[in-house]
Amino acid sequence: PALTTTYRAHLGAGIDGLTARTEPTPEPGPREVLVRVRAVSLGFRELMILRGAYPLPVKDDLIPVSDGAGEVVAVGDDVGRVAVGDRVTAAIFPRWLDGPFTRDVADQLGGSLDGMLTEYALLPAGALLPVPAGLSFEQAACLPCAGVTAWNALTGGRGLRAGETVVTVGSGGVSLLAARLAEAAGASVIAVAGSAAKAARLRELGAVETIDRSAEPAWGERVRALTGGRGADHVVAVAGIGEQELSAVAIEGEIAFVGTLSDVGDAPAIDARRLFASGAVVRTLAVGSRAQFAAMNRLIEARAIEPVVEAVFAFVDAIAAYRHYETEQPFGKVVIALG
Amino acid sequence: PALTTTYRAHLGAGIDGLTARTEPTPEPGPREVLVRVRAVSLGFRELMILRGAYPLPVKDDLIPVSDGAGEVVAVGDDVGRVAVGDRVTAAIFPRWLDGPFTRDVADQLGGSLDGMLTEYALLPAGALLPVPAGLSFEQAACLPCAGVTAWNALTGGRGLRAGETVVTVGSGGVSLLAARLAEAAGASVIAVAGSAAKAARLRELGAVETIDRSAEPAWGERVRALTGGRGADHVVAVAGIGEQELSAVAIEGEIAFVGTLSDVGDAPAIDARRLFASGAVVRTLAVGSRAQFAAMNRLIEARAIEPVVEAVFAFVDAIAAYRHYETEQPFGKVVIALG
Amino acid sequence: PALTTTYRAHLGAGIDGLTARTEPTPEPGPREVLVRVRAVSLGFRELMILRGAYPLPVKDDLIPVSDGAGEVVAVGDDVGRVAVGDRVTAAIFPRWLDGPFTRDVADQLGGSLDGMLTEYALLPAGALLPVPAGLSFEQAACLPCAGVTAWNALTGGRGLRAGETVVTVGSGGVSLLAARLAEAAGASVIAVAGSAAKAARLRELGAVETIDRSAEPAWGERVRALTGGRGADHVVAVAGIGEQELSAVAIEGEIAFVGTLSDVGDAPAIDARRLFASGAVVRTLAVGSRAQFAAMNRLIEARAIEPVVEAVFAFVDAIAAYRHYETEQPFGKVVIALG
Amino acid sequence: PALTTTYRAHLGAGIDGLTARTEPTPEPGPREVLVRVRAVSLGFRELMILRGAYPLPVKDDLIPVSDGAGEVVAVGDDVGRVAVGDRVTAAIFPRWLDGPFTRDVADQLGGSLDGMLTEYALLPAGALLPVPAGLSFEQAACLPCAGVTAWNALTGGRGLRAGETVVTVGSGGVSLLAARLAEAAGASVIAVAGSAAKAARLRELGAVETIDRSAEPAWGERVRALTGGRGADHVVAVAGIGEQELSAVAIEGEIAFVGTLSDVGDAPAIDARRLFASGAVVRTLAVGSRAQFAAMNRLIEARAIEPVVEAVFAFVDAIAAYRHYETEQPFGKVVIALG
Repeated sequence: PALTTTYRAHLGAGIDGLTARTEPTPEPGPREVLVRVRAVSLGFRELMILRGAYPLPVKDDLIPVSDGAGEVVAVGDDVGRVAVGDRVTAAIFPRWLDGPFTRDVADQLGGSLDGMLTEYALLPAGALLPVPAGLSFEQAACLPCAGVTAWNALTGGRGLRAGETVVTVGSGGVSLLAARLAEAAGASVIAVAGSAAKAARLRELGAVETIDRSAEPAWGERVRALTGGRGADHVVAVAGIGEQELSAVAIEGEIAFVGTLSDVGDAPAIDARRLFASGAVVRTLAVGSRAQFAAMNRLIEARAIEPVVEAVFAFVDAIAAYRHYETEQPFGKVVIALG
Repeated sequence: PALTTTYRAHLGAGIDGLTARTEPTPEPGPREVLVRVRAVSLGFRELMILRGAYPLPVKDDLIPVSDGAGEVVAVGDDVGRVAVGDRVTAAIFPRWLDGPFTRDVADQLGGSLDGMLTEYALLPAGALLPVPAGLSFEQAACLPCAGVTAWNALTGGRGLRAGETVVTVGSGGVSLLAARLAEAAGASVIAVAGSAAKAARLRELGAVETIDRSAEPAWGERVRALTGGRGADHVVAVAGIGEQELSAVAIEGEIAFVGTLSDVGDAPAIDARRLFASGAVVRTLAVGSRAQFAAMNRLIEARAIEPVVEAVFAFVDAIAAYRHYETEQPFGKVVIALG
Repeated sequence: PALTTTYRAHLGAGIDGLTARTEPTPEPGPREVLVRVRAVSLGFRELMILRGAYPLPVKDDLIPVSDGAGEVVAVGDDVGRVAVGDRVTAAIFPRWLDGPFTRDVADQLGGSLDGMLTEYALLPAGALLPVPAGLSFEQAACLPCAGVTAWNALTGGRGLRAGETVVTVGSGGVSLLAARLAEAAGASVIAVAGSAAKAARLRELGAVETIDRSAEPAWGERVRALTGGRGADHVVAVAGIGEQELSAVAIEGEIAFVGTLSDVGDAPAIDARRLFASGAVVRTLAVGSRAQFAAMNRLIEARAIEPVVEAVFAFVDAIAAYRHYETEQPFGKVVIALG
Repeated sequence: PALTTTYRAHLGAGIDGLTARTEPTPEPGPREVLVRVRAVSLGFRELMILRGAYPLPVKDDLIPVSDGAGEVVAVGDDVGRVAVGDRVTAAIFPRWLDGPFTRDVADQLGGSLDGMLTEYALLPAGALLPVPAGLSFEQAACLPCAGVTAWNALTGGRGLRAGETVVTVGSGGVSLLAARLAEAAGASVIAVAGSAAKAARLRELGAVETIDRSAEPAWGERVRALTGGRGADHVVAVAGIGEQELSAVAIEGEIAFVGTLSDVGDAPAIDARRLFASGAVVRTLAVGSRAQFAAMNRLIEARAIEPVVEAVFAFVDAIAAYRHYETEQPFGKVVIALG
């Protein structure tokens, strides 16, 4: 169609700064693809961007939201692997194809580049990947940030080996996918939940062991007991690196530091003495490469892994979706679906 | 007891050279443990040793068989982690604890050291590992050679990552365990079987895809078709590295070369042109370290993996067990059980 | 200038099929760069391409030669890091930026894409890298194939560690650069040369040990003696994998199989029994990624490593340069310099 | 001789608790070796042990000092590779042979086991390594803790690759050896020194770049400028992980956290926000395995690397040596030599 409805953000104005507009539908140039967006998902990153608190560069008058899925409706010149009709998602860092992260590939959707909260998104062809077989658009829209972050946390450093123990903390998108992916990879998963009810839901999803940290605040000791005193080989730390994470991790184990659920500025300091005594590695990471995304998708397809969608909002209710995400600490992902 | 029945081998005399004797039961010195053997398993290695065709040094008047399981009945001085009553297996290379293989740690049970085909075996304490919870002695006796070889084949080089594709060839002990371990580690397994009947049994064991190579001798092409043209990330090659293995493997994939089922002297040459065109890595390996054994056991326990025992013979029928192994190409392991 | 002199190849016609033509100088489109070529270098790959014997796809009416260096004279739209006046080389596989090789990134200069034997070459911007400080255009033109292959051979698999032993075979471009790079990386280098004279020149270049294989055909044993019986950790095999390579390599060492100096069809078969007994890994490889090229350049700059140029021909004498390369088995690289 | 002079420590009493005694010379049992100690070296660990502040278990009435070198004067039964007359050092963790550190191998010389501050030390045979060719006993005595820690810091995690940049901080034993080993491994070394005089001495030792942090407290920015904005690939952090270390490290670079020069209890907290923004990995480590020691020695031999000895004291002046170490912040190692 000639016209597209798109949301744009006033940086620093928070959720109130989001406005919907009608704009001409863009046309793909060389190596570009026009995607009819069918679903996007929200994450803490999106709140930080609207608040003007994101650590990486953000363009002005941004189309927000990095994570989405849709179908290809037009392709520009010199586009090889993608064809009209393909169901696709996009890598958040379209130029980070493989290997380690560098500043050269730091451009990101919904950040320094326009994102997916629009009916028709113009995307670099190199960023696109097929939606894994068996996933809906809503489910696929959960993968680019939460899924790839979880996968990188598990496999990007020393690399999870089957039979090892993985601890996940919380029940947001990264933690739930990390638990599912780790289990599919042969790990013994211990999921630390914020309440008995969330622990119960985690057990339904297949985590072998759960710990309710509201009842057991010193959960690191429990992890140690469950592992015969050794501690966990991997800890996916989404809530900073505190006393419990350092108590839970094994010697030569890895704590994947995937950011904090609070503003980064509030992240608590790390006790150097405790860190040294743990004998562990702390690895920071920011999402992952397109190659990591593709590798994760192979496991998702092979084991029929489905992201957990907590709530679905309509495109016209995008602002309500943001508010829900901000206030509810959802179990799983908040998704905005487009017709 | 004061006396022990033990088999000893005349090297080069083949199965006919095996004789049972009654000997004084040995007593453990410092860092030694006396194990009442409850089961041992046979492999191609055992035939080579009796034939005098084994490539590593073999002691004379050997107690043969590297693989066994039993319970600890006495411990010598300076033995830490092992106690009377423990159910244990032993690492084939008792001094290869961790890290890469070197000549310094090449001593092996049932080779340069006495082995397990005896009622009471004297073993170095450092070699012992607990029998994984849930396994019988018969099942545990299948692990030291076949299991650790399979595990090393999958994890010792570039390391299997969940979501990758693994090809196993045949239905001996290494191949069956490689298929089970790979599946538990999140791999998509393609098992190449020698007959339709064996392919059917492999499907029962959980391999997602099977190929009957008697019907489909060019099975490498089938592997390629099943992987969207990419080829397999790992090929566990127990029958040499021929045209099909080189056709099946992906660029930058790994062929684990775990020896040949025929005498090593008969192994066919590898086509260098085809190998180069494959873009793959060929990695030779010989069983694995104690640390690899321990890591495998964690997965075996976590996922309740059971080795396949094809036939069980009594200790008095040890020679019949060897003959069965030699002539029958068994599906799974041949075990000798002791009272 | 409006016009460019360029060589084009009739595939299968050999060196005789090369013809020089005057063509309109191309203009860079988006993400393209026009480079005034100042030097190119020849390798065995170039002969195979002219003979029609190259294993990867080759375009018709090709501008041949993958390896070259020059200066940027014009840039198209959307070109970030490259500016007019930059001294640059180009990665042979312009789309292989980082990570493992895949079919998706197999397009190559002087193969499926036009190459560098031209006054003005049109190149993808993403393929370009700065000429390392301190190198002439002639020297820089030696790096894209021979240098990156040598670097990948040393670092792309298990990765050379300082203090290990590296064996190089021969005195072509790959072998000489492998010896220099390995030495700069802290390795003990043993260079196997085809004659006493070449061994002497290798010693001048800094290789600590040399073996003249014309005098000592069983050089593998010498390598073993020089390493206290252990063998070499890395063998860079440019002449196939024969008895001596398998004798020279350590258990768990790596033989990098970088192709053969004879036609690939003639490569001798690999003795599977000897390979298994070696306990080694054989890794095939084809040049390397742009990231590997950049990593090598950092070492070349830091240690002032200079490729060895055996002979320099003028652009008008390009055919003579090919004939020299074909018949002389040069010590170092054959270069064609442009004004 | 029948009698041996040995120092023993009263834990918690500090340097004043050290006393020399005459004791019967011990005799080696199975797998034990008697070494005539010729030199030992001191490190911060030794002060912590005497103060009772060491984080790992320490035996009472300890013979202190983990690091030493000497010659073998007697061997017990079942000792293979070691013979009377050999010049040897000992690995601090005699049972940590290879692979990752575990609690099972945590026994250490001069800690839970008796150490080297004695005329004749009884040591486990498995712990011994030959003194690298070309080193004196004084120099070799510097290697077990400072050398292996430096080596592990450089190679134990993601692994230094030639051409990368390494930052060392300070001029104690670990830092000086890290700088020398890194340079020999092809790294570009930036040494951060505490004064202009120490920076000058570091330049004499071969560090390409030095920064005097007394003049340039924000040295992280200088590192970034010297690396074209990228930051250092490796930072060897001996003084905690502060603002400058986090500013100096590259994205996906590694900070090796090798302990603190102040009491561990005083180590400053790590700014989680800065750590996350750095994109780096923090890896804790404690010395290294025997295999790492052996690998380091190969480089030390191949490149004739000599540890820096700041001062040598006589055995009777051991207490003065401790006091010198405690008060002087020496440039290099403090050694006690025995006749």
